[in-house]
Amino acid sequence: MAVVQKGGEAGVLPATTMTPLPKARLKQLRALKTRKARLEQRLFVAEGPTLLQEALRAGARPAYIVTCPGQGDAERLHELAAACAARGAQIFHAEPEDFRQAADTVHSQGALGVFDMPHTNPAALFARPTLTLLVLDNVRDPGNLGTIVRQGAAFACDGVLLLKGCVDAFNHKAIRASMGGIFHVPVLDELTPEQVMESLASAGVWPYVTGTKGRDVFAIHFPPRTAFIIGGEAEGVQPFWGERDVIEVSIPQSDKVESLNAAVAAGIILAYRYHATLPRA
Amino acid sequence: MAVVQKGGEAGVLPATTMTPLPKARLKQLRALKTRKARLEQRLFVAEGPTLLQEALRAGARPAYIVTCPGQGDAERLHELAAACAARGAQIFHAEPEDFRQAADTVHSQGALGVFDMPHTNPAALFARPTLTLLVLDNVRDPGNLGTIVRQGAAFACDGVLLLKGCVDAFNHKAIRASMGGIFHVPVLDELTPEQVMESLASAGVWPYVTGTKGRDVFAIHFPPRTAFIIGGEAEGVQPFWGERDVIEVSIPQSDKVESLNAAVAAGIILAYRYHATLPRA
Repeated sequence: MAVVQKGGEAGVLPATTMTPLPKARLKQLRALKTRKARLEQRLFVAEGPTLLQEALRAGARPAYIVTCPGQGDAERLHELAAACAARGAQIFHAEPEDFRQAADTVHSQGALGVFDMPHTNPAALFARPTLTLLVLDNVRDPGNLGTIVRQGAAFACDGVLLLKGCVDAFNHKAIRASMGGIFHVPVLDELTPEQVMESLASAGVWPYVTGTKGRDVFAIHFPPRTAFIIGGEAEGVQPFWGERDVIEVSIPQSDKVESLNAAVAAGIILAYRYHATLPRA
Repeated sequence: MAVVQKGGEAGVLPATTMTPLPKARLKQLRALKTRKARLEQRLFVAEGPTLLQEALRAGARPAYIVTCPGQGDAERLHELAAACAARGAQIFHAEPEDFRQAADTVHSQGALGVFDMPHTNPAALFARPTLTLLVLDNVRDPGNLGTIVRQGAAFACDGVLLLKGCVDAFNHKAIRASMGGIFHVPVLDELTPEQVMESLASAGVWPYVTGTKGRDVFAIHFPPRTAFIIGGEAEGVQPFWGERDVIEVSIPQSDKVESLNAAVAAGIILAYRYHATLPRA
């Protein structure tokens, strides 16, 4: 493992004490911008020191991190690298051009980390005595999906289930928008609605579909084990849900603008559900 | 007034039947990208056919619109121009290079409109027998502000009050993010917190400040006339509010991630407030 030491010119990391990014890793990082490679390798990338610190705070361990010593806050990058190394992660440094190729944005502030996709056991998840699940259908925008995951973490959502057709939750932009939420909330993806309904029915988790009709969400006393099915902004949920035994709920709203952003709808529902699960409620 | 007629090649507007965009208007449109010019001229710009249709639906009348016949859906642009002309708006067409200079984004889909800033009488607003106001403090991101205005329209907010230091609600990006909400919800800006407190106290509107402590927002029975003071994501509300007679409320959340996005917080509060004002509630 490379050892990172402070020294050299004030505030500048001595590049010579770090391991240069191998060509094979650079190639891997470029590939991980595609969903195909992420799924094949079960790896994803989180960019920027803030997100990496969130990951560490959540107990996640990067497989390796890459810093670009000339970019970002040298002191902060040093501390981050030391914290990652202490958890057994490899630390590489990249020249600016290589880092630019490895990173998805120009705002990575000199650090990115590669993480194993967390493994979630669906059976254990569905067996929990209290449960709040989000099932997302046709959510296509990575920023929206990341924001939903962020809110999932804020409101103690136990899991986010993505139906086929949703954007990849491990997309770089979705990871950034989750602001660390991805390290707290289990995500299961590439599911069919049939699989989800089968699991909910077997486990006795009640299915609430959010739409423009149905009961006022604020008037409902949800059972301890609840799943909210929420559709993407453009298309809503697929017709499947209209043909199954589900409970329709809606967020009351005026007719002044079209339907709410999916992330806002998820935030409202999760916030109210979280409030309802608190002991004092 | 220029008359727009269909004809010519299939699906292409005959540019010759429309008035070319005068140089002075192009200069004005370029200037309106700055807040200074918008405030001086009390004008703002909405881009894209969808937003312009929302404006018409809300009863707004553009001072003039500019189309770029080669861009976007010709049929749709034609209908839009006809609808605007029917309301007495001037219709100009611009060559692609002029249109590019006039527009803020490359996603304008061949249409933009210039509108008078709506005039709101604060005295009449504060005199309403039922009232839901949002007071925004330190909201710096135009996308966030626009999303909040959109939600204001969705949840029948009577007015959005912006304290000095907030981003301009008539910023092009904020207008786009409002998705037409700006045509439904009055916005008062450049206010000091002292002015707002004075108005709320005089009118008997109760001030609820949203933060990380205070009573659970879902446990509150709000009075008919209520104002919610919400701080921006990075800084929260300014210290002023901690020294005044306000009621603190919070949205219960876990400690997993940092504070909610201001737009999400506003959405949750406005949704719950709207539910509570419905007759059946």
